[in-house]
Amino acid sequence: MSAHIGVTGLAVMGANLARNFARNGYTVALHNRSVEKTDALLNQHGDEGDFVRTESLQELVDSLQKPRRVLIMVKAGKPVDSVIEQLTPLLEDGDIVIDAGNSHYEDTRRREAALAEKGLHFVGIGVSGGEEGALLGPSIMPGGSRESYDSLGPMLEKISAKYDGDPCCRWIGTDGAGHFVKMVHNGIEYADMQVIGEAFDLLRSGAGIEPAEQAEIFTEWNKGELSSFLIEITAEVLAHTDARTSKPFIDVVVDSAGQKGTGRWTVVSALELGSPVSGIAESVFARGLSSQRDQRALAQDVLAGHEEQVQVPEGFVEDVRQALFASKLVSYAQGIDMLTSAAKEYGWELKLDEIASLWRAGCIIRAELLDDIMKAYADEDRPENLLFAPAFAEAIAAAVPAWRRVVATAVQLGIPVPVFSSSLAYYDGLRRKRLPAALTQGLRDLFGAHTYRRIDAEGTFHTQWSGDKSEVEAVDTH
Amino acid sequence: MSAHIGVTGLAVMGANLARNFARNGYTVALHNRSVEKTDALLNQHGDEGDFVRTESLQELVDSLQKPRRVLIMVKAGKPVDSVIEQLTPLLEDGDIVIDAGNSHYEDTRRREAALAEKGLHFVGIGVSGGEEGALLGPSIMPGGSRESYDSLGPMLEKISAKYDGDPCCRWIGTDGAGHFVKMVHNGIEYADMQVIGEAFDLLRSGAGIEPAEQAEIFTEWNKGELSSFLIEITAEVLAHTDARTSKPFIDVVVDSAGQKGTGRWTVVSALELGSPVSGIAESVFARGLSSQRDQRALAQDVLAGHEEQVQVPEGFVEDVRQALFASKLVSYAQGIDMLTSAAKEYGWELKLDEIASLWRAGCIIRAELLDDIMKAYADEDRPENLLFAPAFAEAIAAAVPAWRRVVATAVQLGIPVPVFSSSLAYYDGLRRKRLPAALTQGLRDLFGAHTYRRIDAEGTFHTQWSGDKSEVEAVDTH
Repeated sequence: MSAHIGVTGLAVMGANLARNFARNGYTVALHNRSVEKTDALLNQHGDEGDFVRTESLQELVDSLQKPRRVLIMVKAGKPVDSVIEQLTPLLEDGDIVIDAGNSHYEDTRRREAALAEKGLHFVGIGVSGGEEGALLGPSIMPGGSRESYDSLGPMLEKISAKYDGDPCCRWIGTDGAGHFVKMVHNGIEYADMQVIGEAFDLLRSGAGIEPAEQAEIFTEWNKGELSSFLIEITAEVLAHTDARTSKPFIDVVVDSAGQKGTGRWTVVSALELGSPVSGIAESVFARGLSSQRDQRALAQDVLAGHEEQVQVPEGFVEDVRQALFASKLVSYAQGIDMLTSAAKEYGWELKLDEIASLWRAGCIIRAELLDDIMKAYADEDRPENLLFAPAFAEAIAAAVPAWRRVVATAVQLGIPVPVFSSSLAYYDGLRRKRLPAALTQGLRDLFGAHTYRRIDAEGTFHTQWSGDKSEVEAVDTH
Repeated sequence: MSAHIGVTGLAVMGANLARNFARNGYTVALHNRSVEKTDALLNQHGDEGDFVRTESLQELVDSLQKPRRVLIMVKAGKPVDSVIEQLTPLLEDGDIVIDAGNSHYEDTRRREAALAEKGLHFVGIGVSGGEEGALLGPSIMPGGSRESYDSLGPMLEKISAKYDGDPCCRWIGTDGAGHFVKMVHNGIEYADMQVIGEAFDLLRSGAGIEPAEQAEIFTEWNKGELSSFLIEITAEVLAHTDARTSKPFIDVVVDSAGQKGTGRWTVVSALELGSPVSGIAESVFARGLSSQRDQRALAQDVLAGHEEQVQVPEGFVEDVRQALFASKLVSYAQGIDMLTSAAKEYGWELKLDEIASLWRAGCIIRAELLDDIMKAYADEDRPENLLFAPAFAEAIAAAVPAWRRVVATAVQLGIPVPVFSSSLAYYDGLRRKRLPAALTQGLRDLFGAHTYRRIDAEGTFHTQWSGDKSEVEAVDTH
């Protein structure tokens, strides 16, 4: 009865989290379905801290201080349910079961409710930062009960990444809130990577700048408002030369982007919430399109481009930088809008400043920008939309002329910039006095009697289109 | 034991379908939870054909020829399950239960499987055309077993819309196929309406053409390749003057577009299938954004436009027409791509030519274009993508220069055209030799060891980014 925490599932992520706890002074009980992985970890890293070797879940449970803390790190989906099923009969009132995998937040909500009935705490935590982050300090987004955080939080904060000394770990909210926020983090990550890709493509195909030279440009960009992990590693990837061919590395990689599902989940959830995350959606679709290789091969022969022979405008590189920054801001605004909607829908008291704060280090989207986002939401006068915060309204306004030039140029050159252009359409749609949605409502009323509202009167109305076109007040919309 | 079909649920849609059957010579047994609706229908329309009045589901069932056909027209969701639950104990082997509402295809799949176990046929049918279509001839998309169609199909074909004498009703495929195809129909309808809205906005705000004059333009457009129900009624809505204010009707309608969910369902399903329906998604998001009225009101004061003072180019109206047509083609191509993916996923043998054929009349997206789409897929050499069919590749190629001019102009003018620009990005993405997805893969390999493929070698690879940057062959992608 001595270990502070138990970890079951010792593949790389689980092993690295276990080592991280141990290196921070905690005694960590280890368990894996096959004992070989446990022993491998002990052989290679057993001297990093205090570990307890166990061969069964019963042994694992018996080795833990009460309330027990058991962290599960297995593949999302059925494997998590299976471990929970074996584990829960061994636990007692008040013990804490932690799922640190990439679980869907609806699964986490279901599991939390089920375990709560048994008197157990279930905590779904989002962990970002990859294998290295898990070992050296990830960004951690814990859900579950507030009570469980009192016992678990200090340990998680200790192993988390730090930004200026602040731990990148905060209690997010009840049940699935942690996994939800991690999912949105990943959705933003999709958009972040896509806008970088669009900038790269514009500089290459529009301005003729080769990858090695672009590496220097991205390195330079990384010193300004774009400063972030993804911009930094873009420079690294673009600078890399393929040893086999001596070509730029990027030119020998197949241009079909994979995905593991969290981007897709983000968009599905946003659709359910009615939150318009068009930039994130376009980046998911861009990956999907890139993977339709058969169609793409055929299209190259069949579809005409009719690109216009335009010269890229003076100052194009700086224009692209600004367009990238503006599009990135829109993706963050959309992701955060989705968090606001989710908080209402699921009864979470999401603290947007804290969420931004814990993305400042450890995770894939870590960026200087997040410090400013944190400040915007720490303000008493919290903006309804990230773009309305004075600092961001100003920043994006400064970028708008360049953004328009870049999208117009891309369109003429035939270079696809789905997220640059979608984000600009969102921006222009949001600030527009009248949208053509009024026409949509008119059409819906004509063919389906769906009714409409008037700008000058309360109530719901229907025009008798197939009759004398007089207007009647309608009782309900159907 | 005389009626050919029974209808339960006699709100407008159910009542109109019942009358349609009766007017086509079938004896129709009527049932409604409250008998008042049954009697109202009989009082008003009892002389239109042979009806059998019943007061209970038992009476309804007893009045039917075998195999019995019972059509349910109640609100999608739990009400359908509830009627099925009451109905099935009264039925016998081989009887047919029909759900003609807007049910989600996954519900239909579940219900079909459950009823098949009891020896009953369950047929989900998509019905498009609104109230008027239900009465005078809708487009009908029946799923369920092939066997059930032998008995039910002739009746459905008789009451359906006709295009040049061909019934707009064909067996779509097993279980939920009918409701799936109806859902995609609705998704395309969302995009169709949004591109019309974008054209309207460009002509109004870009070229300064007032609604009444636009009505004439749309009437003219309706004579050419855009000829369709939605273009026709757009002219009607734009021509309408509000009696109360003497303003154009469209100017007194609140510009927040409603939605009932099928557009959203379409995008969710496409995401699950990995099919990039970006145009449909943008139209769903455009409705969502239009409904965020609080944010929109704030944005007007806060967000700067910096629109450029450009003149719309010579021939702008014709350019917009071409851009609308090209964007519309992309939406259809995306919707059909999704059908192809779904056929593989769910084991449906979807006949794309037949699906296009039954959308030619009766439904909301009916258009001349669908006759050409039907022909493209009737060809032995079926295109992998609608845009690859020679007629369409040619048509869209002709529109590309105008399309580029229109999107570039809209972007400079600050007029949001999310579907015009997203569709163009899809088109350019599809035909592009190299996409920046290669960079995405490089980044994913660096931060998450997600691996990549090479253009010049089989296998999966990983670069040891934090080591000497040498490349190793990877066994699995994770």
